[in-house]
Amino acid sequence: MNFLFVSNADSAEDWSRALSDIRPDINTQIHPDIGDPSAIDYALVWRPPPGLLASLPNLKLIFSVGAGVDGLIEDPTLPAGVPVVRMVDQGLTEGMTEYVVWQVMNRHRRAALYRQDQEARRWRPRHLRLARNRTVGVLGLGEIGCDAARMLAALRFQVLGWSRTPKSISGVDCHHGRQGLRAVASKAEILVCLLPLTEETAGILNRDLFALMPRGAYLINAARGGHLVEADLLAALDDGALIGASLDVFREEPLPQDHPFWSHPDITITPHDASLTSPASGVRSIANAITCHEAGRPVPNVVDLAQGY
Amino acid sequence: MNFLFVSNADSAEDWSRALSDIRPDINTQIHPDIGDPSAIDYALVWRPPPGLLASLPNLKLIFSVGAGVDGLIEDPTLPAGVPVVRMVDQGLTEGMTEYVVWQVMNRHRRAALYRQDQEARRWRPRHLRLARNRTVGVLGLGEIGCDAARMLAALRFQVLGWSRTPKSISGVDCHHGRQGLRAVASKAEILVCLLPLTEETAGILNRDLFALMPRGAYLINAARGGHLVEADLLAALDDGALIGASLDVFREEPLPQDHPFWSHPDITITPHDASLTSPASGVRSIANAITCHEAGRPVPNVVDLAQGY
Repeated sequence: MNFLFVSNADSAEDWSRALSDIRPDINTQIHPDIGDPSAIDYALVWRPPPGLLASLPNLKLIFSVGAGVDGLIEDPTLPAGVPVVRMVDQGLTEGMTEYVVWQVMNRHRRAALYRQDQEARRWRPRHLRLARNRTVGVLGLGEIGCDAARMLAALRFQVLGWSRTPKSISGVDCHHGRQGLRAVASKAEILVCLLPLTEETAGILNRDLFALMPRGAYLINAARGGHLVEADLLAALDDGALIGASLDVFREEPLPQDHPFWSHPDITITPHDASLTSPASGVRSIANAITCHEAGRPVPNVVDLAQGY
Repeated sequence: MNFLFVSNADSAEDWSRALSDIRPDINTQIHPDIGDPSAIDYALVWRPPPGLLASLPNLKLIFSVGAGVDGLIEDPTLPAGVPVVRMVDQGLTEGMTEYVVWQVMNRHRRAALYRQDQEARRWRPRHLRLARNRTVGVLGLGEIGCDAARMLAALRFQVLGWSRTPKSISGVDCHHGRQGLRAVASKAEILVCLLPLTEETAGILNRDLFALMPRGAYLINAARGGHLVEADLLAALDDGALIGASLDVFREEPLPQDHPFWSHPDITITPHDASLTSPASGVRSIANAITCHEAGRPVPNVVDLAQGY
């Protein structure tokens, strides 16, 4: 069977090797070298050029590298009837949870203050609050958000979760809907965004939400740049509504050299690498999806185009 | 009953209020205002002046604020026959685990590199290893070390534990004795010291141990300054044997202004506040110990003076 690999952000060599390791019958074409378009059975893509997928007449499944498919499904020429499969592999989930724990602990333990103290050679012990007395909100309770929320609860934080539809997670106080969002935001001293980017969630991290949060709260966005209204964040940091933010994703990536986030003392930047799908674990979910598809069984993690994730 | 409170590092007001809240029959004298030495029943101390405790003829129990009692039991005039009770309260344990998780995540996720990138406005995504592929060693498996090791395992790290005597902790590969120390050190990419300071453990973090560790390993010391041979750490950082260290404790505290650790780019300093016993939770274990003592039952957490902890 023939794969087409399309991504500027991932290693074509690593992915094609991992694909043939797990299924020796896979032959991988690497974009822009498509070969015969009608011979392509499956596409593995990250931000493919609009129209490319529509040019493959015999495509059976489209695999998205990474869990977010917003860029892909915005393509109006996306071939109807070809399922888009999100790659939510265990490694991606674990890496994201580790990023969240890392950033939550940095805020919880006042990393910035200790760094300043060390630079000034100041010995200033602090009585810090315990995690059990700190409330963290998690927006988005899909596979990734659920794992992160569970881990924060294991770390003894008070964890609130929010999702579009009702969820139940042991140790996590789950809410849903617009009213639920208000309930979570109004208590979250640290708010973590792990939502899919949809029409409903675009710009959800805005001044109205920040105004609901406890004064001096902290924002962590590891979902999509489109969730955040950047000017509202700068204003909230300016007036003390928020005390800081950790951002892995941005409206424009790479973040432009002259963007004010780079040098903001209260913003911690990572370059959209909070978690990446590794070829070794990613190809396992691909192989599983192909097996299901060939057997006529439901393919897991197919995107609901109407919901946008 | 009469308490004597002796500490320069803790709030006498907070502790005496918490004591009388939990047992209204407690009257607290605050050093140096001792009153009648023969009237003192219990002492609650942190680094008391040598000889002070010997001057209290009717002392029943000595409570140590904090889990480390090395400074206290070094006093040659420590009255024989008066049990020394370590305060290992749940809050102290949780705070220490939070410090350990914080520092481990900073190393695991390459916090220093990302900070440099942000300062230079560099967009440089990295494929980071997952916790499940990272080995962390924990030295000391008392109440605190055990909790920290369990939490690191919950975070999916490969966790090795080491203690003087054999221990068994679910999810943690436990070793003991000199041979066991070698086994743990030789695999620990991040090594966390949570040992009591005794004759056996003084200077245990030295060049011989660093030489056993994987090249580029990271050291976290949240136990006592006396565990670390400071010159050996500087040499190991110099020659790349270690990549960095997080230190909460030092031979001399406060860390002297001219100490080379302050400005070392690979050393992260906190001012011996990784975890502090809070009066609210500390007095619960005090009240429990008094109840046991009055009823003639064994008092928990009594220090074994021969072992030194």
